[in-house]
Amino acid sequence: MVERVKTGIPGFDEIVNGGIPKRNVVLLSGGPGTGKSIFGTQYLWNGLQMGEPGVFVALEEHPVQVRINMRQFGWDVRPYEQQGVFAIVDAFTGGIGEAAKREKYVVRDPTDVGELIDVLKQAIRDVGALRVVIDSVSTLYLTKPAVARGVVLQLKRVLSGLGTTSILVSQVSVTERGFGGPGVEHAADGIVRLDLDEYNGELVRSIIVWKMRGTKHSMRRHPFEITDKGIIIHHDKVVRIKGGTAYIEGA
Amino acid sequence: MVERVKTGIPGFDEIVNGGIPKRNVVLLSGGPGTGKSIFGTQYLWNGLQMGEPGVFVALEEHPVQVRINMRQFGWDVRPYEQQGVFAIVDAFTGGIGEAAKREKYVVRDPTDVGELIDVLKQAIRDVGALRVVIDSVSTLYLTKPAVARGVVLQLKRVLSGLGTTSILVSQVSVTERGFGGPGVEHAADGIVRLDLDEYNGELVRSIIVWKMRGTKHSMRRHPFEITDKGIIIHHDKVVRIKGGTAYIEGA
Amino acid sequence: MVERVKTGIPGFDEIVNGGIPKRNVVLLSGGPGTGKSIFGTQYLWNGLQMGEPGVFVALEEHPVQVRINMRQFGWDVRPYEQQGVFAIVDAFTGGIGEAAKREKYVVRDPTDVGELIDVLKQAIRDVGALRVVIDSVSTLYLTKPAVARGVVLQLKRVLSGLGTTSILVSQVSVTERGFGGPGVEHAADGIVRLDLDEYNGELVRSIIVWKMRGTKHSMRRHPFEITDKGIIIHHDKVVRIKGGTAYIEGA
Amino acid sequence: MVERVKTGIPGFDEIVNGGIPKRNVVLLSGGPGTGKSIFGTQYLWNGLQMGEPGVFVALEEHPVQVRINMRQFGWDVRPYEQQGVFAIVDAFTGGIGEAAKREKYVVRDPTDVGELIDVLKQAIRDVGALRVVIDSVSTLYLTKPAVARGVVLQLKRVLSGLGTTSILVSQVSVTERGFGGPGVEHAADGIVRLDLDEYNGELVRSIIVWKMRGTKHSMRRHPFEITDKGIIIHHDKVVRIKGGTAYIEGA
Amino acid sequence: MVERVKTGIPGFDEIVNGGIPKRNVVLLSGGPGTGKSIFGTQYLWNGLQMGEPGVFVALEEHPVQVRINMRQFGWDVRPYEQQGVFAIVDAFTGGIGEAAKREKYVVRDPTDVGELIDVLKQAIRDVGALRVVIDSVSTLYLTKPAVARGVVLQLKRVLSGLGTTSILVSQVSVTERGFGGPGVEHAADGIVRLDLDEYNGELVRSIIVWKMRGTKHSMRRHPFEITDKGIIIHHDKVVRIKGGTAYIEGA
Amino acid sequence: MVERVKTGIPGFDEIVNGGIPKRNVVLLSGGPGTGKSIFGTQYLWNGLQMGEPGVFVALEEHPVQVRINMRQFGWDVRPYEQQGVFAIVDAFTGGIGEAAKREKYVVRDPTDVGELIDVLKQAIRDVGALRVVIDSVSTLYLTKPAVARGVVLQLKRVLSGLGTTSILVSQVSVTERGFGGPGVEHAADGIVRLDLDEYNGELVRSIIVWKMRGTKHSMRRHPFEITDKGIIIHHDKVVRIKGGTAYIEGA
Repeated sequence: MVERVKTGIPGFDEIVNGGIPKRNVVLLSGGPGTGKSIFGTQYLWNGLQMGEPGVFVALEEHPVQVRINMRQFGWDVRPYEQQGVFAIVDAFTGGIGEAAKREKYVVRDPTDVGELIDVLKQAIRDVGALRVVIDSVSTLYLTKPAVARGVVLQLKRVLSGLGTTSILVSQVSVTERGFGGPGVEHAADGIVRLDLDEYNGELVRSIIVWKMRGTKHSMRRHPFEITDKGIIIHHDKVVRIKGGTAYIEGA
Repeated sequence: MVERVKTGIPGFDEIVNGGIPKRNVVLLSGGPGTGKSIFGTQYLWNGLQMGEPGVFVALEEHPVQVRINMRQFGWDVRPYEQQGVFAIVDAFTGGIGEAAKREKYVVRDPTDVGELIDVLKQAIRDVGALRVVIDSVSTLYLTKPAVARGVVLQLKRVLSGLGTTSILVSQVSVTERGFGGPGVEHAADGIVRLDLDEYNGELVRSIIVWKMRGTKHSMRRHPFEITDKGIIIHHDKVVRIKGGTAYIEGA
Repeated sequence: MVERVKTGIPGFDEIVNGGIPKRNVVLLSGGPGTGKSIFGTQYLWNGLQMGEPGVFVALEEHPVQVRINMRQFGWDVRPYEQQGVFAIVDAFTGGIGEAAKREKYVVRDPTDVGELIDVLKQAIRDVGALRVVIDSVSTLYLTKPAVARGVVLQLKRVLSGLGTTSILVSQVSVTERGFGGPGVEHAADGIVRLDLDEYNGELVRSIIVWKMRGTKHSMRRHPFEITDKGIIIHHDKVVRIKGGTAYIEGA
Repeated sequence: MVERVKTGIPGFDEIVNGGIPKRNVVLLSGGPGTGKSIFGTQYLWNGLQMGEPGVFVALEEHPVQVRINMRQFGWDVRPYEQQGVFAIVDAFTGGIGEAAKREKYVVRDPTDVGELIDVLKQAIRDVGALRVVIDSVSTLYLTKPAVARGVVLQLKRVLSGLGTTSILVSQVSVTERGFGGPGVEHAADGIVRLDLDEYNGELVRSIIVWKMRGTKHSMRRHPFEITDKGIIIHHDKVVRIKGGTAYIEGA
Repeated sequence: MVERVKTGIPGFDEIVNGGIPKRNVVLLSGGPGTGKSIFGTQYLWNGLQMGEPGVFVALEEHPVQVRINMRQFGWDVRPYEQQGVFAIVDAFTGGIGEAAKREKYVVRDPTDVGELIDVLKQAIRDVGALRVVIDSVSTLYLTKPAVARGVVLQLKRVLSGLGTTSILVSQVSVTERGFGGPGVEHAADGIVRLDLDEYNGELVRSIIVWKMRGTKHSMRRHPFEITDKGIIIHHDKVVRIKGGTAYIEGA
Repeated sequence: MVERVKTGIPGFDEIVNGGIPKRNVVLLSGGPGTGKSIFGTQYLWNGLQMGEPGVFVALEEHPVQVRINMRQFGWDVRPYEQQGVFAIVDAFTGGIGEAAKREKYVVRDPTDVGELIDVLKQAIRDVGALRVVIDSVSTLYLTKPAVARGVVLQLKRVLSGLGTTSILVSQVSVTERGFGGPGVEHAADGIVRLDLDEYNGELVRSIIVWKMRGTKHSMRRHPFEITDKGIIIHHDKVVRIKGGTAYIEGA
């Protein structure tokens, strides 16, 4: 039987038949404002509550801001960092600035994927991480699409090889229907898409699991909310579109 | 509880649950003629009325013209400039011309983002600015899309770091559905879109908040007007499209 | 109160609330055959009838042909040229050919925007121009889209600075929905679009004002005709599309 | 009153209010198989019958083949060539081959627009041409779109300057809605589009006049046929599309 | 009266009014799996049965495979090759491999269009070919679209000049609506399109003649089948689409 | 009568009239998560059960992971590898890493198609392979589309020449309607497309055979499932779309 990692995100484990299969590398794809970073940090926080150490790789925000953003949902990671079961890899500041000097895991050159992987490996081993979130991988190949597949395969080898179950955040443009490009889509073990779409003057949030190696998963688009406790997915409801308007119906 | 900055723009604070969360950097995106510059200067003017100093970075218009445009809505900023609570950063003239010589904050080379940031920091500190509007950031990467994300992240670090709550105006083409490109969309803390669309022979103005870190916000598209007092948003009304015609309905 | 320039084009002043605000630089955008040159020359001719001198910059046609085209509508500009209240800037021939030698304002190198501006300034000053039409600005950046915004801003500074109220003709392709590119659209004070569209086997002419700084304007698409007296806009009628067919209805 | 050239093509003069205004340069645009070459040679043949000499510039076919193609419609131009009132400019063979040696007007280097214009001027003067057809101009800039506008303006100056009324054939791809590119569309005095479209399993031929300087013209899409006597346009009928099917109706 | 070549393909001669006009060069365009190679070889085989020699230029398949493919429809060309009335030009192997050594007409460098034409001319003369099929011309400019028109014109001159009636197979992508690019479409004397389209879960084969110089032709889309005897066209039936489903109806 | 290879995939042999014609090279095209790798390995596993040796070329996954993935469906290939009737060609690791050292067939430079073909030939001969799967060919030209056709033709020559019946997996993006590019689509003997599409909030899996040389095949789109025993195709059912919703109906 397949080993699974429970995300603890309300409704998500239900739609992937109990949790993400262990060692899977999942692409979490979505446009701006869809809740990708919240999903990723909620996954790590819930792991900490279940005794599973984790690592967050910050490529889009200052580590200080990451901690602030998490605290807004009541997720205070400082004690866990002090216990040595959680770590933030700073791949944002390049080590520049006062605050950066207090970070333990710093990637000096965020454009150097090799260095990033070295620091990440160290962090994973130090905390004994079982969960990793990289927010976002898109930054690593934003201006170099030709290297995207290579970067994702390299990360996958390390993350899966070290026994972690991980989420790679993939930023797509608001008008883009794909998941981050052909090289990336096929390399991942799983693909989860978060959407924010306008239907007749209303913005609607929904999630769909496109692919998840090693398990059955829901084949439906489910509505979700972002609350002050984090994301809540309505796995028993489905989003349907009729005549340009969205309807939330029982699944 | 989250600290907020009231925009004072009728109807807008209502749709972001009381105001923009402090230190947020908000992308204000829209096509030509949608009212972006009016929104930005109205935000600054209202700040002055509430005792909150501000800075306007002029990249699209001569500072003299900016003042004229504001005066057409009854917003005369000269007294506030003299009191040292408002400043215009001239990133338009390059210091060329008689009128430019009378400006206090001049960016000699408007294509040099480093210099722009230095002058901006000085102006923020001089007036003790709590609000900043950059009109527009698009100009900074119009012919160099690859640097867009870097420019926005640099600005964000400075603006948020100095404690201001700011608006970055993003110009999109009339036919473009996005907010200014993938690098820019994901870097901002908030995204507000102003639209001017033709439905069956009628032009309709509407506003939608796509994303606002740290607060709930309306998930609907609201109609707005440009009056001789500035923008008025009808937060209790929604724009819906049926059969190609737009209808304004109660929310 | 805002000063206005009356175009004298039947129906147009009505849809911009009395005329174009003084010193505005208006982009007049449209595909082939939409009547842009007629609109522009009619604006200048009407100015002459009201005692307002004008300048036409010819980038698409030989000045001789411009005069012939105007005469077909009964607009004979030669007497006004002789009185020194009207001028054509020849930015078409490069001074080559017998006819060109008889022109007073000749741009030797029509690809040199600097020279064009110098000649244009001279002409404006000589005739005391209050109205200027440049037909077309598109030619100035047809093969160099990256310079478009810079060219338009340069022209705007000169035209507005010298006190003229001007029209920049912008040629777009028949299949193009925009107004001439992002750099151009945002730089103009006003945008007027002329359209020629096929609906179910019928060609329909319409005009819409997308933006006009300093004034309210009609938010509707109005039908217009090209007659042997020039353009007539039906400001009291609207073009609506139902099921692929256009209907002209009372506004 | 405007001088006109009668095309003699059944139904066409009716839809341009009596004929093409003299000296106009008309872009005849259409996809493959739409009948552009037939239209052009029919225009020239009819001129010969009315005593108006003409020149055909062959860029797509061997001059020998042009004569064969015309003969299939009963239009034998050899006698007119011998009388010196008709000429074919061979811009196809480059003078290579036995047959080419018998041609009088040969462009040695068909990629050299300057040489083409020199040979064309000679031919126009020799036969005293009042009508010219260039089939096609697209070939002159097929791989160099940036020069398109310049080429068309150069031709226009010569053709109009020498007093001819001319047709420039513009080849567009079967999937292309435009007329041959922005530079070309705006430079022409007239635009006529020939279409061949599939509606629900039926191919339908239609013609529409998009623009014609100096005259009113039909604003409707008319059906036409290619018969063994050439093109016949049904100027009293209109093509309308309902639910994906084309209907031919009385105008 | 126009001389015609009977294709012998059931239903095809009917839709081109009796056969392809002699010396025409016909573009046979279609996506993958549409039956282009079958159509081409069936045309040649039927010629052999009527005593008309032919040449097949193999650019996509090994000549050995071409013979195998033909034999699957019962078309054994070996005896005709031995009688010297049929030839395959091997423009696939480059002369490499054992099997290639047994071929009589080999193009050493298949990327060299000049050599291909020399070998082709030799083959045409040797067998006295009246029919030629080149499968496919697309290969000749797959990575060099700028030379497409030149290649097709060169082939056309040779094929028509030597008195053959020929088919140029043009491969288009499954998603492409055109016939192989603007340069190619306009150069051909005829255009025949083979389609394989999905309508509501069913694949439907159809053929349409878009253009055929020198003859009238059906203006309708006809269904066809690929049987073990080759292609059969239902010239008395038409394919119509209603509400996304295809219907085969009497013409 | 055509020789066939039974895939053993429930429902598939039925839709290709009994099996894939021997020596065919079939393109198996689909987006991420459509089940391409499962289809390929199921084809090889079933061959082993029927006594037909096979080779899998691993370009997307580590050979170790390929074996793990197969075992999840109950397909344990290790005994077959030890008997010398199955082989995995490692074109993923480049021979780097401990696990790679235990692999027998390693391509040192996976970007070198020549080396890949040499190793592949060796593996085919060693095990006497009748079936080959290359997962995926897209990787071989991901950043070099111009070489795609050449690569596929080279592989085809080897695979067909050595008597194998093979599947080339082609990865397309989720938004792409084609099969992998024009060069690739036309080179294959067969094209099978696996689809995963969202209809009104539901993900639906379907398969369609677009082309299969040497045999009749179903012309319909059939639904399929991925179960813990592998793929099951419902060859007696069809997927139809009505009003944006998918319906599974009897064929």
